[in-house]
Amino acid sequence: MQAARLHEYTHDMANGLSLDEVDQPQITASDHVLLDVEGAGWCQTDNHIIEGMWEEYVPQPLPMTLGHENAGTVAAVGDEVTLVSEGDQVICHPVRTCGTCRPCRMGETMYCENDQFSGLTTDGGFAETLLTNERAVIPLPDGVDPAEIAPHADAGITAYHAAKKAVGDLVPGDTAVVIGVGGLGHIGLQCIDAMSAAEIVAVDIKQEARDLASDLGAHHTLDPEGQDIPSEIEALTDGNGAAQVLDFVGADSTTALAPDICAAGGDHHIIGYGGHIHEPAQALVNGEFAYQGNIVGKYTELQELVALVERGDVDLHTTQFGLDEVNSVAEMLEHNEIEGRAVITP
Amino acid sequence: MQAARLHEYTHDMANGLSLDEVDQPQITASDHVLLDVEGAGWCQTDNHIIEGMWEEYVPQPLPMTLGHENAGTVAAVGDEVTLVSEGDQVICHPVRTCGTCRPCRMGETMYCENDQFSGLTTDGGFAETLLTNERAVIPLPDGVDPAEIAPHADAGITAYHAAKKAVGDLVPGDTAVVIGVGGLGHIGLQCIDAMSAAEIVAVDIKQEARDLASDLGAHHTLDPEGQDIPSEIEALTDGNGAAQVLDFVGADSTTALAPDICAAGGDHHIIGYGGHIHEPAQALVNGEFAYQGNIVGKYTELQELVALVERGDVDLHTTQFGLDEVNSVAEMLEHNEIEGRAVITP
Amino acid sequence: MQAARLHEYTHDMANGLSLDEVDQPQITASDHVLLDVEGAGWCQTDNHIIEGMWEEYVPQPLPMTLGHENAGTVAAVGDEVTLVSEGDQVICHPVRTCGTCRPCRMGETMYCENDQFSGLTTDGGFAETLLTNERAVIPLPDGVDPAEIAPHADAGITAYHAAKKAVGDLVPGDTAVVIGVGGLGHIGLQCIDAMSAAEIVAVDIKQEARDLASDLGAHHTLDPEGQDIPSEIEALTDGNGAAQVLDFVGADSTTALAPDICAAGGDHHIIGYGGHIHEPAQALVNGEFAYQGNIVGKYTELQELVALVERGDVDLHTTQFGLDEVNSVAEMLEHNEIEGRAVITP
Amino acid sequence: MQAARLHEYTHDMANGLSLDEVDQPQITASDHVLLDVEGAGWCQTDNHIIEGMWEEYVPQPLPMTLGHENAGTVAAVGDEVTLVSEGDQVICHPVRTCGTCRPCRMGETMYCENDQFSGLTTDGGFAETLLTNERAVIPLPDGVDPAEIAPHADAGITAYHAAKKAVGDLVPGDTAVVIGVGGLGHIGLQCIDAMSAAEIVAVDIKQEARDLASDLGAHHTLDPEGQDIPSEIEALTDGNGAAQVLDFVGADSTTALAPDICAAGGDHHIIGYGGHIHEPAQALVNGEFAYQGNIVGKYTELQELVALVERGDVDLHTTQFGLDEVNSVAEMLEHNEIEGRAVITP
Repeated sequence: MQAARLHEYTHDMANGLSLDEVDQPQITASDHVLLDVEGAGWCQTDNHIIEGMWEEYVPQPLPMTLGHENAGTVAAVGDEVTLVSEGDQVICHPVRTCGTCRPCRMGETMYCENDQFSGLTTDGGFAETLLTNERAVIPLPDGVDPAEIAPHADAGITAYHAAKKAVGDLVPGDTAVVIGVGGLGHIGLQCIDAMSAAEIVAVDIKQEARDLASDLGAHHTLDPEGQDIPSEIEALTDGNGAAQVLDFVGADSTTALAPDICAAGGDHHIIGYGGHIHEPAQALVNGEFAYQGNIVGKYTELQELVALVERGDVDLHTTQFGLDEVNSVAEMLEHNEIEGRAVITP
Repeated sequence: MQAARLHEYTHDMANGLSLDEVDQPQITASDHVLLDVEGAGWCQTDNHIIEGMWEEYVPQPLPMTLGHENAGTVAAVGDEVTLVSEGDQVICHPVRTCGTCRPCRMGETMYCENDQFSGLTTDGGFAETLLTNERAVIPLPDGVDPAEIAPHADAGITAYHAAKKAVGDLVPGDTAVVIGVGGLGHIGLQCIDAMSAAEIVAVDIKQEARDLASDLGAHHTLDPEGQDIPSEIEALTDGNGAAQVLDFVGADSTTALAPDICAAGGDHHIIGYGGHIHEPAQALVNGEFAYQGNIVGKYTELQELVALVERGDVDLHTTQFGLDEVNSVAEMLEHNEIEGRAVITP
Repeated sequence: MQAARLHEYTHDMANGLSLDEVDQPQITASDHVLLDVEGAGWCQTDNHIIEGMWEEYVPQPLPMTLGHENAGTVAAVGDEVTLVSEGDQVICHPVRTCGTCRPCRMGETMYCENDQFSGLTTDGGFAETLLTNERAVIPLPDGVDPAEIAPHADAGITAYHAAKKAVGDLVPGDTAVVIGVGGLGHIGLQCIDAMSAAEIVAVDIKQEARDLASDLGAHHTLDPEGQDIPSEIEALTDGNGAAQVLDFVGADSTTALAPDICAAGGDHHIIGYGGHIHEPAQALVNGEFAYQGNIVGKYTELQELVALVERGDVDLHTTQFGLDEVNSVAEMLEHNEIEGRAVITP
Repeated sequence: MQAARLHEYTHDMANGLSLDEVDQPQITASDHVLLDVEGAGWCQTDNHIIEGMWEEYVPQPLPMTLGHENAGTVAAVGDEVTLVSEGDQVICHPVRTCGTCRPCRMGETMYCENDQFSGLTTDGGFAETLLTNERAVIPLPDGVDPAEIAPHADAGITAYHAAKKAVGDLVPGDTAVVIGVGGLGHIGLQCIDAMSAAEIVAVDIKQEARDLASDLGAHHTLDPEGQDIPSEIEALTDGNGAAQVLDFVGADSTTALAPDICAAGGDHHIIGYGGHIHEPAQALVNGEFAYQGNIVGKYTELQELVALVERGDVDLHTTQFGLDEVNSVAEMLEHNEIEGRAVITP
């Protein structure tokens, strides 16, 4: 079968992946699930992987097929699988977990001690067929198109995961700030709107993104290039600051906002990455805020997000591309030219 | 009366404060409480105030009497005070709160919108008499010496505040790391020991501090000058990292430990300050940990700490000095020469 | 001035209160607030008070003016009041708290050790003027009519209080059941809808109430006289039961539903009262659910509810009556003939 | 092999189980684990099962081997088991979970939708060999005797589970009441003592039990036959009541204490069962307390309890009996004649 694979790290996005002919994966364990991939979302993290940004954090055996936002139809199952059977449509959590380590026992999908992360530490879904396991798949409700929902498998649950944490600390009258209304941010904004009665302030440098934010439920939008974010947020919150900030950008300039925009006791959630935090410890003491890291969401959070999608609470804008267009997609994303989320349809 | 006052910011600790003759404060509101000060703890923050480190964070009308860890005997009360009366021994929360703003209504002492912080934004307790209010005082149990317990008014509750947050996320089998076993750290360590069944690892460069930690309940001690902290903690936690880290130092070198020693989902609590955080956002994403700021504890936390002291769960080592020795104390602290906590007895 | 007062407990609602000429209350403490009452909601609890149902739980000095859901215009204030001044429009939390006991320090309005509850333990708002204090009043946003919002002072915050607890345990895909869509229930339902993405099932014996529930956001309605509630809820929840149940009725027949409709780990919130719980301990062990009692909401929850009202998230249906109609209102409520909430306008 | 099996429900404990010769269970799935049973605790619930008290709650195919508190040595494993291998000593969570339903994904062992509960819904450990699965076993630390620790598999984690919930709401100065210092209660008491700084009041009608409670850390003991529990607890708590009550008895007389001994906002945990709750809804509203049901603890809680045992924080008193003595044990327990916990050693 054909698969889009990374052979070596590079900053040349035009030649990041190569289209290889590889053997189709086989079922070799009782819980394996083989999937005909119908949609595999392309993520900013795919660009980061190609650049080698994850090399120091996780093991990456190259060459490796990328693609961690996968959905499709079950082609075959191991002999003890009961959750799904051939022909079922499913969305895949990107991580195949063991189910027996302590983190798995606690429901902490992302902390599994024996995990395999499709498209990050093992072959992913930019291919005709994907090998995963029973603990990674979620059956889709009737009428949901796998190619349409695929990006929720990572972008969606990551945004939902952070939004769910934030919502637990938001009461009516509080303000939530969403920084960056892109692939993840526009989902996170909708999740906060659906699950809380907080005032939502969206911050983005692009007019289109701010317009999208307004359409999706933001009560206020701010342009960091033309407005002073701290003073605007101070005015919008009667001087209290924002109870929760969701930073989907993670640049030096966005993490630096925290001391000035976080309410006492609040959180600045780090979801996007690429930049750094540079702050005096005293700022955190004086403001009693946290820089809260956020990883990909849990399996159960993907179930919850699918429930939100089924309710019509979260819209996702996608554009589909063929498997042979992966490098073009990587380049377009680099230049901020993707409308909504790109989905590869092998 | 005599009062030790700051007239201008300086790095010359030998001449930081001057002993002035000032008018005794008067009761002018129905909730005022006048206190004969019997003990006023000297804190690292007093040195920081003298250096001007708080000027950008809070209003400081100079000259101002320092001293925010106060205890003594009630000398007089306003005409609507019911909680205490003349002759009662009390410990003072450093902040005089209004009781009517929303943070006060939520029990968030430190977020009061109309607060006055003794010794930080208004005259404090390095004087014969202190003016405070009913919402700041806690009657002491019989037999507790105000001069002995005074440092709990700030050092104590700040350590307790962070420890209480940490304890909420510690289960048996988890590890807590205490960095810095000084004035605050040795209290925080005891609080964690009393309120959880976590394994406690204490980190300090001084042998005496590590010995004290062992005496007070630490299960392991580490010396950052002779040992590699990340690999030691990895070994002590079967590779999982520490669920909670309490950083009572807050230097660049201690905040930098977080990505390597925090367990997934854990917190690196910032309590000490002076240094900075410099980390890539990706580290927080990958490890899903938080840098959690911690301010001074709440009034109710001071009540809880007094209960711990009454149970015998928290020992406090103090050395007493006269009001005329404040600058010597500041210098000794600068040189790390104070055994336990210095208490000024005006 | 005129005041509707209870002289002795009775089940004769037609003669429950008498309209007395009494002295106007006076400001005698620095935090007192005098209010020209513009609206005072009539509550099922007023009927219960008249019947003597609260006699064993709280001290009630008779004769006493009833009325615990009060709003109006500030007529005068004590000399240390800063939160409001003459002419301000306010809604009153029913409890005057002391602000210095430990529960007050924790924000637990209802647990104040020195509380006075307007219309329950001291004179309330069925009168031209009400005496309360600074810690009980909340300034109203511009354009909010005190007579329209008055019932939120008790019915509203009680419903909100329970809804807020429930919402903390509701994730997308979960089901919340609201039993009784009356004065409190129709508010609670809207709060859940505004603050969560749960599926809402409303249960009421009246067709009008079920219609109202559907209008206000319920996804399903059930009629306990024509349908088997446990089997219907089982079907609606794929056999899992409801994560949270809010019982605004509190009758024997509604508390008895818990073992059959609560999901494992769920809560059956008791808000309405009048009936009993009669269940084997084993049912709670096997289903691991809780019967969770709910008292009136906190002061800060009334602030949050006012924010919800300002957002347009909670509609309240009221009908106004004169002070001389209080006994008619009591009778009508007894016979289930009040549309929405009755508000007395003295 | 020999197994002690229930053929029909009976109140005649002297003949409750019969010693049958049955086939040894076989490994038929990839995750199966076969155990040589070295200790199987006898629980009050075994008596309840024999009496038929669980028939209406769970499916029970008779005849069935009882025994749900099992520990021993692994005899054989399925071909995909990695957590343990032949010869390992383990303690077994009583429930074999599927690992793929939503509750399993959330770590909610006891809510598994496809569970098999050893000795309650399928054959248990009163036999030479037990069939269980990888998701049910926990390797024991070196030096721990399986026969000594076996009762922690159910009695232990049930007590720990409730204690852990309670501890989350206990701060220094709060009081916890433990009702019933028997098989579960004496473990729960030690867990609270290890994990909190609460004052512990133990209530038991037996002098030996009260003495044991004092030895294990209770600060006060009360005798319900000679003392008025509500007034004693009122005195011990300055009139505030107990923040958390753990009712290991669950009789009508113990559940009836809740309105009088629970602090506002507190919980009365139902762990023991046999009796009923009979209370007016108004009592729960006025006191805002909860009757909180508690089921058996989770797998991860058994890990945490093993960590507590390894620390030396929880002592367990056991007496061993042969497989042929099961009916004698049942009778002795019925007559309150078992010292500590009975363990069957097949």
